[in-house]
Formats: sequence, structure tokens, C-alpha cells
Amino acid sequence: MQPTKRLGRFTVELASPPSIIGFASVVGKKEGEGPLKNSFDRINNDTTFGEKTWEKSESRMQAETLSAALNKTSLAPGSLDYVFAGDLLNQCIGSSFAVRDMALPFYGLYGACSTMAEGLGLASMLIDGGFANHTTAITSSHFASAERQYRMPLEYGGQRTPTAQWTATAAGCCILSSEGNGPYITHVCTGQIIDLGVKDSNHMGAAMAPAAYETLSALFKETGLAPTDFDLILTGDLASFGAQILRDMFQLDGIDLGPNYHDCGVLLYDAKKQDVHAGGSGCGCSASVLCGHILNGMKDGTWNKVLFAGTGALMSPLSVQQGETIPCICHAVVISNTKKEGA
Amino acid sequence: MQPTKRLGRFTVELASPPSIIGFASVVGKKEGEGPLKNSFDRINNDTTFGEKTWEKSESRMQAETLSAALNKTSLAPGSLDYVFAGDLLNQCIGSSFAVRDMALPFYGLYGACSTMAEGLGLASMLIDGGFANHTTAITSSHFASAERQYRMPLEYGGQRTPTAQWTATAAGCCILSSEGNGPYITHVCTGQIIDLGVKDSNHMGAAMAPAAYETLSALFKETGLAPTDFDLILTGDLASFGAQILRDMFQLDGIDLGPNYHDCGVLLYDAKKQDVHAGGSGCGCSASVLCGHILNGMKDGTWNKVLFAGTGALMSPLSVQQGETIPCICHAVVISNTKKEGA
Repeated sequence: MQPTKRLGRFTVELASPPSIIGFASVVGKKEGEGPLKNSFDRINNDTTFGEKTWEKSESRMQAETLSAALNKTSLAPGSLDYVFAGDLLNQCIGSSFAVRDMALPFYGLYGACSTMAEGLGLASMLIDGGFANHTTAITSSHFASAERQYRMPLEYGGQRTPTAQWTATAAGCCILSSEGNGPYITHVCTGQIIDLGVKDSNHMGAAMAPAAYETLSALFKETGLAPTDFDLILTGDLASFGAQILRDMFQLDGIDLGPNYHDCGVLLYDAKKQDVHAGGSGCGCSASVLCGHILNGMKDGTWNKVLFAGTGALMSPLSVQQGETIPCICHAVVISNTKKEGA
Repeated sequence: MQPTKRLGRFTVELASPPSIIGFASVVGKKEGEGPLKNSFDRINNDTTFGEKTWEKSESRMQAETLSAALNKTSLAPGSLDYVFAGDLLNQCIGSSFAVRDMALPFYGLYGACSTMAEGLGLASMLIDGGFANHTTAITSSHFASAERQYRMPLEYGGQRTPTAQWTATAAGCCILSSEGNGPYITHVCTGQIIDLGVKDSNHMGAAMAPAAYETLSALFKETGLAPTDFDLILTGDLASFGAQILRDMFQLDGIDLGPNYHDCGVLLYDAKKQDVHAGGSGCGCSASVLCGHILNGMKDGTWNKVLFAGTGALMSPLSVQQGETIPCICHAVVISNTKKEGA
């Protein structure tokens, strides 16, 4: 017996697609100087967010993002039935410290930069499954806390390679509801771990692109939808090299992702002027691009059907030191202004 | 409109409780010398599990546990619709490396030592919600990888306080199905983050007990069930001090948890003979006790209704160094040999 909502190995179609009733993004100074600066709810030029450590700054940013998203709804914080949150910090302290005072049912996630898509998928399924009326997916990353943990303290002034990505100081939050006027999450495609042997943690786009290819291929196959059925296909965060690799992989299948394909890591910064090398990364990169530029654009009709595919590299500094390759994953959701196909 | 499956703020009652059709536990030498030694599927006296690093040893152990659980079912690995996995290692590499070659839809979790309960809750809801037929929850911990990451390299021979807990070298896995003869997961109570200001990371039982109190209190209140309605109430892993604190907190409410209350951290080792101080901890502690001693006992009728409450401390070594208190969480599931109350 195949569950009725299941279209295939990786994709489910939601019977009662939840509506995104509130969303918000909060970013740092550099992100606020980029091409999407007008799409964020708040740009904080003080990237300490008034805190004494970068980790606490990230938690503060994530908490402010949740508050900003809630403020766009009529909901009291206590109305949230489930919070799905995660970040890049060891033991995910960016998230657990952000919401520890809110007394909300909490599920901690770890999906690296795919966490926003992972959270949206689970938050949507718990509403569609009749377990909740209101859920939220939230995630964050902070350049300084990430550099310290993954690479080296900022004070060291480490060199970066051309393929390296810039961890965004950013957070994004979506509030989902069983009722609302959209945009709606209509499909959830859960990723599998893909590891094709890339070892260079300064070339994560190359490591993650095959995971994005597998997830998008599965979604196209299982839904019967083609790239041309979407106004926008958005990966996060393959950046410039990874996005081209993804296009090339689909070209080998005779599929052109076309002009509607973009990547959050490419969109967030002006690569020429902002010295981010390949582009942005970090849980907050795709989250802040989605919860600003993209959802604003869906609200004003710029896009009506978006395929949002969060990509994550699941290595750790220690696994890299131990000579391991980089396992990656990509989770995708279909976001549409139409609740049901043909409706 | 309250979703029909929702009993209150934290607890849902599953309409079609999934069945645990397979479970397995794999542990290290010390765990295999403890009182539960006859309940494990495999005891590996070589705690390297044949690998060159402790982190790879942990991944190997987790992978072996999943295989052992699957072998007790008629399922091919590809039949699993979702894998929920997590561990204590930075970026959860214990889990992502364990399943990276299996091409399975994967959701990475971080709930510290509550991860098994967190995974069981989500894995159960996705089946009950019609998204999956077969799901699995798996988690692990390894004494050596945890000591290196959280405390100090084993070679340093660090001193331990009387309240300190011993991270178990253990893994546990449950395979859930929409069909089967039980035991069944009938209720899921999702935890909130509780932080009462404890800062001593060598006294995590004290930090986690209030989270267990809040979750168990919510479950009792929302289900109308009393401690006496369960054959066994099992926390993991408060250890000896934390378990007594939990009893004391309920005593203040006039509630006696009674002789049926036990803690996985207390059960796993012989505290007198095995020098574990307050008892066991780690994601693998409650997972291996549940997926061995407890579920075997439910199968043979020793217990028919079990309240399994996984507890986790969500701090990181860095948050402790920064003087932060310890946020904690407790997720609970009700496991019963009877699919429906009164049935």
C-alpha cells in the first residue's frame, strides 16, 4: 500500500497545502549592501547585534527574525504548534539559544545550508498531516561565527580561493498555517545524501551540485513537472561554480534549466563589487533570499510557481582533516500561489 | 480549528499508530559488560569498530545498527521512506557518514541525547500523516569521540566529578511501519526548551531534569494519563542525580513517579562496579536501552505500556566557555502493545 500523498521515492504531494502567512529576513551590513538590500526586513550594520560573542549575535539575529515574521501575522508566539530550527554552529546553539525562552514545541534540525528547505518540508507535512495549525521554519548563519568554527579566526586574515563561498550573516523565517491565502507549499521532495568524492571544502558548490541534481531530477520525474513549469527554480547555495555544474549535469540529460534557474548564493551578493568569490553560503543565505526577495516577488505576482531547493554540505572540519570526502544533500519544496494544480 | 490529532500544546494522539517492526542495538565493550549485556544485538569489544578514527568508528557502529534492525524485517533498505538520524558530533557526521551510501530520503536532527525520542516522534507522525509506509529513527554516541569533542582527549586522563555522566558507546535503531503487530507508538509529546540556569556541564542531570518534568507533566495533563497508567516510565539520560531531581519535582506536585520510573543512564551500567559516576549519557544510551532491553521486554510482555522520554542538553563546549547556562529539552513518545486505548 503506497501512501496516497506519496508520488515516488522522494516526493510527496500535500493534500491540503499549508499557506505561508508570514515571513521575515534579517541580515548584516554586507548583505544589506548587496543587490537584494531592499527585500530584507532589517539590515543591522552592527553585526554583533549588540552581543558580546558572534555566537550570541547569531542567536539574537535568529530571534529577531522570528519576532519579525510573527509580527506580520495575527498570531501570538504561543500559537506556534512546532518550531523547526537549525544552524551551522556546533550543537546548533544558534537556534537553541534563540528560542529557549519561548516555551514552544521545538525540533532541532541539522541540514547545513539545506536546513531552511528541510524545515519547510517537515513544518508543511505536520500541518498537512493534521498535527498542527501553525508551524515555523527558521534558520541562520553568521559570517564571523562560521569563519571561527569552520576556517580560522577573522583576525588571522586567511586567504580564500576563487571557488570559496562567503557565509552570509543572515536569518530567514517562514510561518506556515493550515489556513491562508498563500503562497502555498504544495510538494516536498526529501533529499538523499550524495557524495561523489569531492574533498575540497573550499569548493562546496562542486560537492553539492550532484545532490541538487539528484533531488531536482527526482522531483521532475515524480511530479511530471518540467523546468519550464516553474517561474523560478532556486538552489541555495551552489554559488557560481556549483550552479554552472548543475546546469551542465542537466544538459547531459538534454534538459536546459533555462533562464528561470537561479542560485541564492549568486543572488545575495554582487560578486564583482563585494569580494565574495564564488558567492554566498550558510543556512541564512537561502533562508534570507527566500524570506525576502522571493516571497515578496510571489506576493506581487512576479513569480507564481517556485521550486526552492536548499543544498547542504554535511562535512565537519574534523571529517575534512581526516581526509574524508564531503557528503551533501538537497531538500526541495514547491511553493505556488495556486493551492492545487488546475485549481 | 484545533487539528483533530492534537490533545494540547505539546501532545498529539496518532490516528493510526505505527508499529515498531524492527529494532536493534550495537554497543561497545564497557556497555557489553553492564547489566543489560544480554539485550544487545551486538557487543563490539573493539571499540574502534575497525576504523582509524573514533568518529569513523561511531559512523560504522550506526550503520551496523541500521543493518541489524533492517535484517529483523522483510524490508529492503530501499523500502525506507524516511531516515531520521542524529548524533552528538559537530555537524552530526556520525549520522551523515553512516547512511551516505544508502540513497535514502534523509532528515538530519540535532536533539543531543533526546535525538532518539525526537526521531521516533517525527518518524511516527510522517507515517500517521500518510507520507510514508516505513520510516526509521537511528542515533549513536561514542565515548571516545564525545570525550575528545566535549571534554579532552582520552590520553589526558581528565578527572571526572561525581555528577558527571559517561557517554555511552552505543547505537539504537527502530524501524516503523504503517502495518504490523506492535509495539505501537500511540502518542508524541514534543518538548520545549527549558533553561533554569544550570551552568555545570558536569551536572547535566540537574540541567535536564526540569525539561523532563515539563514534558512529562504536559503529557500527563493533555492525555489524562497518570504515572500509574504506565508499566514503565523511562527517561534518558538523567542518570542518578537527575532522576532523583525529577522524582522530587513531581513530589512537589503530590505525584509519586513510583517504582515503575527508571532512567536509561542508570540502567545501562552498574554504577558501583563500572566507575561511570552518575550514570550513562549520549544519544546512544537511551537508544540502545530502548532498542534492546525495553522493546525486548515489551515483546515478551514484561511491559505493555511504556512512556519513553529522551532528554537532551543543547549546550556546546563554546557556549559553556562563554558562561552560558544549559538549555535542555525532552521529547516523549508513548509506546504500547495495544494499538488503541480500550481496543
